[in-house]
Amino acid sequence: MKNIQQLNPKEFRALIRKGKWDKPTAGLAMGYAQANLVILPQKHAFDFLLFCQRNPKPCPLLEVLEPGEFRTKFLSLDADIRTDIPRYHIYRKGKLHKTVKEIRSFWKPDFVTFLLGCSFSFEEAMLRSRIPVRHIEENKNVPMFITHIPCKPAGLFHGPMVVTMRPIPSNKVTQAVQITSRYAWVHGAPIHIGNPSMIGIKDLRKPEFGDPVTIKKGEVPVFWACGVTPQAVVMKAKPDLCITHAPGHMFISDLLNEELAIP
Amino acid sequence: MKNIQQLNPKEFRALIRKGKWDKPTAGLAMGYAQANLVILPQKHAFDFLLFCQRNPKPCPLLEVLEPGEFRTKFLSLDADIRTDIPRYHIYRKGKLHKTVKEIRSFWKPDFVTFLLGCSFSFEEAMLRSRIPVRHIEENKNVPMFITHIPCKPAGLFHGPMVVTMRPIPSNKVTQAVQITSRYAWVHGAPIHIGNPSMIGIKDLRKPEFGDPVTIKKGEVPVFWACGVTPQAVVMKAKPDLCITHAPGHMFISDLLNEELAIP
Repeated sequence: MKNIQQLNPKEFRALIRKGKWDKPTAGLAMGYAQANLVILPQKHAFDFLLFCQRNPKPCPLLEVLEPGEFRTKFLSLDADIRTDIPRYHIYRKGKLHKTVKEIRSFWKPDFVTFLLGCSFSFEEAMLRSRIPVRHIEENKNVPMFITHIPCKPAGLFHGPMVVTMRPIPSNKVTQAVQITSRYAWVHGAPIHIGNPSMIGIKDLRKPEFGDPVTIKKGEVPVFWACGVTPQAVVMKAKPDLCITHAPGHMFISDLLNEELAIP
Repeated sequence: MKNIQQLNPKEFRALIRKGKWDKPTAGLAMGYAQANLVILPQKHAFDFLLFCQRNPKPCPLLEVLEPGEFRTKFLSLDADIRTDIPRYHIYRKGKLHKTVKEIRSFWKPDFVTFLLGCSFSFEEAMLRSRIPVRHIEENKNVPMFITHIPCKPAGLFHGPMVVTMRPIPSNKVTQAVQITSRYAWVHGAPIHIGNPSMIGIKDLRKPEFGDPVTIKKGEVPVFWACGVTPQAVVMKAKPDLCITHAPGHMFISDLLNEELAIP
């Protein structure tokens, strides 16, 4: 067998489909876009699609499937959304009900699947330009914070924006803005630079999700919209049923990160 | 009274609301974004929103309102979508039923309003960089062609992409791509450059909509996705009811074109 690092997205999805990989996907199939998953019953699909349209930075839609459809057409031509993600979370009325490795037995013909962009795409570009990505250096989860910036509500769905924080050396902040601006379909440019209290963050050492990371002297905290936002908003709305990927256990697409970038 | 050219969007919408302006809006409130209008009953709203998500170049959504809502929140804070557009077309089962100056008496609580970007925004930027825009020079409507490029279907909605054509001097084609790329939310970069037959266009002198324009020696035909696409697709789907702006009679927003541009 090939080394795990050498598998392409198709080979990786096959491994996941067979139940042979149920761990996080960070660092796998480098160069290819990974996606967040949200599945909702059709009765909530218009409101959620509208929520994403109104909040493209935290909710960058890569692909939305027709009701009942579980095969992607854009992110891949041979993927099955019911089996090709390492771990799923099943929520009932906003509470985690079960963690499973496939969802074929839960599937209903009114399920609508949303796949959303992920910051892994722009982190790769930052690293290529020698901009440090601290949580990768420290082998941690990216620190995430709930801000006091409200998302634009849509129907059932409303709530504050969740952001990720990456400490950037002050002489590289401009370049970090320029690089991530190119990735408009995977969270894009920062939401805020410099002053956590201005967006309602009290203590950078106490993220709401993920791990705290070291901020070195001369580094500026830079904040990007985070894909946890739509999940937090959906949980708050307490739909009868919602299925997501387990955090970090993403869908690996056949699309190159560069194909998601503005020229 | 101020000269018509000097009115700002708010003043213009007030004039339209009073029924005192029912002509096309090209060249008015320069600098401000104008928008295409599509209103559909709620039962078709998810499919149409999905169609726009899948086809962002011909269908660049600027704002979508909740079912029944007729006040915009993003494009303007004081606009009424039922009265603030100079002329409306009411379609029944895909056929033009009536042209009216306001739609208050037709309004239903299940109407969903979609406002989509318009190429006026990037034409202004082209002119500022001395790239000629022929149909403006010749005081005509932009020539539009039905291509053989299929849009990605969604539910009821499917059909070919409609494009606009602008002849560009060959030494300015690169710059035309660069400038319009910045306007990703108003059709963005060209769909095709140079060879009409490659996208299914037989004769540049015979546009399906609008007027033919002069192509001078040394000019290259350049094609952009056109906001007539969603209208053509909706008519083909023959919903019981659909309301649009009359061609050229757009919604004038308070948003600057520059606010729609990528930095």
